[in-house]
Amino acid sequence: MNPPKTDARRHHDPDVRGFASDNYAGAHPEILAALALANGGHQIAYGEDAYTENLQQIIRGHFGPTAEAFPVFNGTGANVVALQAVTDRWGAVICAESAHINVDEGGAPERMGGLKLLTVPTPDGKLTPELIDRQAFGWDDEHRAMPQVVSITQNTELGTLYTPDEIRAICDHAHQHGMKVHLDGSRIANAAAALDVPMRTFTNAVGVDILSLGGTKNGALFGEAVVVLNQDAVSHMKHLRKLSMQLASKMRFVSVQLEALLAKDLWLRNARHANEMAQRLYEGVRHVDGVEILYPVQANAVFARLPHDVSERLQKRYRFYFWDEAAGDVRWMCAFDTREEDVDGFVAALKEEMAR
Amino acid sequence: MNPPKTDARRHHDPDVRGFASDNYAGAHPEILAALALANGGHQIAYGEDAYTENLQQIIRGHFGPTAEAFPVFNGTGANVVALQAVTDRWGAVICAESAHINVDEGGAPERMGGLKLLTVPTPDGKLTPELIDRQAFGWDDEHRAMPQVVSITQNTELGTLYTPDEIRAICDHAHQHGMKVHLDGSRIANAAAALDVPMRTFTNAVGVDILSLGGTKNGALFGEAVVVLNQDAVSHMKHLRKLSMQLASKMRFVSVQLEALLAKDLWLRNARHANEMAQRLYEGVRHVDGVEILYPVQANAVFARLPHDVSERLQKRYRFYFWDEAAGDVRWMCAFDTREEDVDGFVAALKEEMAR
Amino acid sequence: MNPPKTDARRHHDPDVRGFASDNYAGAHPEILAALALANGGHQIAYGEDAYTENLQQIIRGHFGPTAEAFPVFNGTGANVVALQAVTDRWGAVICAESAHINVDEGGAPERMGGLKLLTVPTPDGKLTPELIDRQAFGWDDEHRAMPQVVSITQNTELGTLYTPDEIRAICDHAHQHGMKVHLDGSRIANAAAALDVPMRTFTNAVGVDILSLGGTKNGALFGEAVVVLNQDAVSHMKHLRKLSMQLASKMRFVSVQLEALLAKDLWLRNARHANEMAQRLYEGVRHVDGVEILYPVQANAVFARLPHDVSERLQKRYRFYFWDEAAGDVRWMCAFDTREEDVDGFVAALKEEMAR
Amino acid sequence: MNPPKTDARRHHDPDVRGFASDNYAGAHPEILAALALANGGHQIAYGEDAYTENLQQIIRGHFGPTAEAFPVFNGTGANVVALQAVTDRWGAVICAESAHINVDEGGAPERMGGLKLLTVPTPDGKLTPELIDRQAFGWDDEHRAMPQVVSITQNTELGTLYTPDEIRAICDHAHQHGMKVHLDGSRIANAAAALDVPMRTFTNAVGVDILSLGGTKNGALFGEAVVVLNQDAVSHMKHLRKLSMQLASKMRFVSVQLEALLAKDLWLRNARHANEMAQRLYEGVRHVDGVEILYPVQANAVFARLPHDVSERLQKRYRFYFWDEAAGDVRWMCAFDTREEDVDGFVAALKEEMAR
Repeated sequence: MNPPKTDARRHHDPDVRGFASDNYAGAHPEILAALALANGGHQIAYGEDAYTENLQQIIRGHFGPTAEAFPVFNGTGANVVALQAVTDRWGAVICAESAHINVDEGGAPERMGGLKLLTVPTPDGKLTPELIDRQAFGWDDEHRAMPQVVSITQNTELGTLYTPDEIRAICDHAHQHGMKVHLDGSRIANAAAALDVPMRTFTNAVGVDILSLGGTKNGALFGEAVVVLNQDAVSHMKHLRKLSMQLASKMRFVSVQLEALLAKDLWLRNARHANEMAQRLYEGVRHVDGVEILYPVQANAVFARLPHDVSERLQKRYRFYFWDEAAGDVRWMCAFDTREEDVDGFVAALKEEMAR
Repeated sequence: MNPPKTDARRHHDPDVRGFASDNYAGAHPEILAALALANGGHQIAYGEDAYTENLQQIIRGHFGPTAEAFPVFNGTGANVVALQAVTDRWGAVICAESAHINVDEGGAPERMGGLKLLTVPTPDGKLTPELIDRQAFGWDDEHRAMPQVVSITQNTELGTLYTPDEIRAICDHAHQHGMKVHLDGSRIANAAAALDVPMRTFTNAVGVDILSLGGTKNGALFGEAVVVLNQDAVSHMKHLRKLSMQLASKMRFVSVQLEALLAKDLWLRNARHANEMAQRLYEGVRHVDGVEILYPVQANAVFARLPHDVSERLQKRYRFYFWDEAAGDVRWMCAFDTREEDVDGFVAALKEEMAR
Repeated sequence: MNPPKTDARRHHDPDVRGFASDNYAGAHPEILAALALANGGHQIAYGEDAYTENLQQIIRGHFGPTAEAFPVFNGTGANVVALQAVTDRWGAVICAESAHINVDEGGAPERMGGLKLLTVPTPDGKLTPELIDRQAFGWDDEHRAMPQVVSITQNTELGTLYTPDEIRAICDHAHQHGMKVHLDGSRIANAAAALDVPMRTFTNAVGVDILSLGGTKNGALFGEAVVVLNQDAVSHMKHLRKLSMQLASKMRFVSVQLEALLAKDLWLRNARHANEMAQRLYEGVRHVDGVEILYPVQANAVFARLPHDVSERLQKRYRFYFWDEAAGDVRWMCAFDTREEDVDGFVAALKEEMAR
Repeated sequence: MNPPKTDARRHHDPDVRGFASDNYAGAHPEILAALALANGGHQIAYGEDAYTENLQQIIRGHFGPTAEAFPVFNGTGANVVALQAVTDRWGAVICAESAHINVDEGGAPERMGGLKLLTVPTPDGKLTPELIDRQAFGWDDEHRAMPQVVSITQNTELGTLYTPDEIRAICDHAHQHGMKVHLDGSRIANAAAALDVPMRTFTNAVGVDILSLGGTKNGALFGEAVVVLNQDAVSHMKHLRKLSMQLASKMRFVSVQLEALLAKDLWLRNARHANEMAQRLYEGVRHVDGVEILYPVQANAVFARLPHDVSERLQKRYRFYFWDEAAGDVRWMCAFDTREEDVDGFVAALKEEMAR
């Protein structure tokens, strides 16, 4: 069959892949097929369509009968909507200093959500009840922004994982203090794949109240969802999503992507594959002299320290980012579309550059 | 060829179309083809991809050499980013009382952008220099939010059109008072088609400083762009887009949709067709006794007044909305995918219901 | 006794008074005496002092046992704190187009409170249930900012008064729709004096939920209070006041001013006097040919239309403001310190200038 | 002379003083005298009065010919107005983790100003160029809130002082990176007294662009000012002050207090006295066994660590606060009205309680 006609042209080489970010990948072909399936005819706009309705069933299958999904555009949007939903005007969010909401969202939580972030330095991106306690105080003190929610990231920005028990301990601790728990799950699929458990095992089963469920890094073109697990914790989610500029008019096209991922196992296949490629990369480089692995490789990221000049030469062959340029730390990300030969080629290139 | 496999299923009847909204339509098939073309391999995230770069050329072709596009997710996002870009913290926006930013964005301009809207009642959704003057005063008065930008909508929420000269008069007037002009172009293609002029003729050629360019209603799955025409009027658009939660990570998929629309004439074909269908609808109903047409039918909307019970019966056969239920006013929208037989069937149904 | 020493010097003529604003007046001498009384020694900061505690008794005496006062700095602060207190993040405020919160607060409600104002044109600054209904709809529509509170001003910016029954009708109507009622009482004392009833008669007795109680225009140096009447409607007022930058550290000096006004009848004496001076002014000018009185003179303001050149000459002798310069409308305000001879001199001057 | 009559009553013992806060003190008698001087007659509201005009002369005398004062109500207001003035919508503020704007303003900078705070842990509340560099990066990265201003506090919340050279180094460093410098001077008088230099020596003489000048803790009833030193750095301060709810209508009463403090040497007398009392306290307790002094005593605060039960017993005799209750750290503040006998009594009481 001839490809369908379009006035757009191809401007890139679809065979080039790097290790810069799982956002550099495109969409999984099954996602495009799902879009075609949902296309045609008229569907009610703004979320009253059949695809969004069906998505609720799928979400309940994953997260239990109280779960409800509110599709949004991107991760920052999901986080800001979710955090507004569980805070009052005077509320604050306890999070790791390295959390995406703190360092990578341009101040959107503060500026758009009016949220105060109470940050805690962590060794590995993970909070604990003890670390939370460094900011969990002063609820009666009007001079202090009131801690109302703990936000954790699974897996973390540093590629590390919480066990379900660790999240349960955080949730129990937060709830004892009257706080809610938000989980930033922009890579929740990678976490579930790495832990080899259903997503519910480390979310609603252990007390998470609300989460940001990532689709984009998992193989969608775009699209995330705020998933409410504790309905008592929130109100008027649709209004919040709208006023936060995260309401898609043709929402069927967000929902059907999430359906394509979550209806069966595409989400898991994609995540497992990305994780396996990170393991393959880790195995390939861990014994290379001069390369130090910085954090446990638990999901789809490898953080390493190596000579700066080596990194610079290597970056001319494969795209990736410095994480802390002064220290010589780099981040190598694998995606759902990373191939074994990409990893092997990268490892070989690394060895070559180390040997120069 | 077999359709590509996906775990998603079809949940709707792709042959059903109504007159509720151009957002009820799906995406044009050429859009889906463009997505496939842009897929595969790795591309830099967050707007440094080849598709977004190429889009700039296309935008300059439409709007002249100073134009620059900043793709965003949706119309509210485009408006709030654009209006922030041309206001200070103390700035206010003069707009029609019926403007989308005033009545249909859940307060996002105020809440997310910190913008004060200074509204003016209009007979037909259109501002004039005289109407602007009702709010254009008090620049030195700190008690008053300072009018810094006039926001007009082309075509308006009421389906009416500004001529290029009318927009020029507004721009001249605004500029004389030191104000900028923003054009909400969520249906800019319909306007250009109706006026039968290039988009530049009623934007940068007559003094518009910044605009929201709509893709979704024109046949995309999602995707709009803030288009800066007057570079001196703005700064740090990328920061504004990010902090406003409107930065797509896999931006190539927004940009390639806009490319598919704008590279040649898909934008115009789609808009012309929608407009023609509205004319066909107008011609079909204008002489029906008991139906009053409320505004000139200049683009893809028909506003009519008819007996409430007739509307209710008709709504059981075709989806459409009351615009002012108490008055019996309804809105019938045509989209790029509206077919002649849809219109004819609707007109016939209307006549049947009027006759009952 | 020698006056206490200070390094400050007198820079103004304390005998000059005009008709520009009740904010042009200084403080009543009893207010200064009260400050001296509260001075000396240490008192807990931020509202835990004995004066603020005592103020609660006084407020309950005026407004009934559920009333609670939260002293703040100024009227804009009082309004923005009060309105935040009775709205969610998605809430909107229905108010008259001429309301101070809409036209005279620099956009503070929108920018600081994240509030959307839904305005209604009024003939005389007063809302009615019918006027409220122009904006009271769409509670389930996420595209619309949700009407959650009606804000009225007593007496209004136009010097007009609501009767208690009129306010009751507004409150009943608002409550039937699940909305709260806020009363902007920056001149509530003038209203009570004009109606010759206790303040409670047109506030909590008829259903007002929360109000901004003015002290500044009533003879204080500065100082207002948010008074909560319906405790079920609000939460965490102290946090809201603090985050809204309205928490005075040495709050005893705000509270004791309100005590000086409200403990006995200073508030009423001051207001009555100002109202009487406005009546005297009204009587003096109402029959002057060429002077048209624009609104009923019910409190301490006289709005008049007269020839522009007369106003300009008169302004050289007494300060006052144009209200609508194009129309030739002016506002003459009386204050607690306006003297009979001030009024008589002004009337004589007006007559002279009219005769030229 | 009989005291002037007022309906207010005295509710406190003016002879009781503690060590809780310099905000617990009342106003200096010369301040009350100044209020009386400024009273009477009419003065233009909102800052066009003769006292505010005169204040500008005084401020220029202290800070040089470019300085301009914008009186506001309180310290949080001053800081939020000043920081908005030197940031764009995408701007961020680098400050010490212990800064008042970060820990004691209820999130007002974030919620009201839309400001992102980039905090740095410090040993003693003081930033340095090296510490600033921990957050001073990423200006081109839209994912990061852009560092645009460094905010330092003089003297700090921990009672420590910057030397003029230290501030110069910070300003030079900030300016090299295109950032402005804000100085939170809620206790700037204590700093000047401790350093024994004019205020300008450590502000505009070394590059500070804008500052919050404290009056309240220095002996006023209330009242601070944003002082602009670098006019090129700001715009439309009056609009910012108004929309931030910090515009006093009867501003003469703020300005005259600042005049009383600053016209001659009341500001310095008050600050010196408070500092001396802190030194006296320090001398009294430094050799007491079991009492550890935590920071250099450079201004009017003494931070100490002592047994928790001792502190609790002592708090029954004199009010003061725990600073870090878990660690047993307390803060003892002296004010302009602290007397030698207060200090001596407190030291004796401390020794008694330590000996029990």
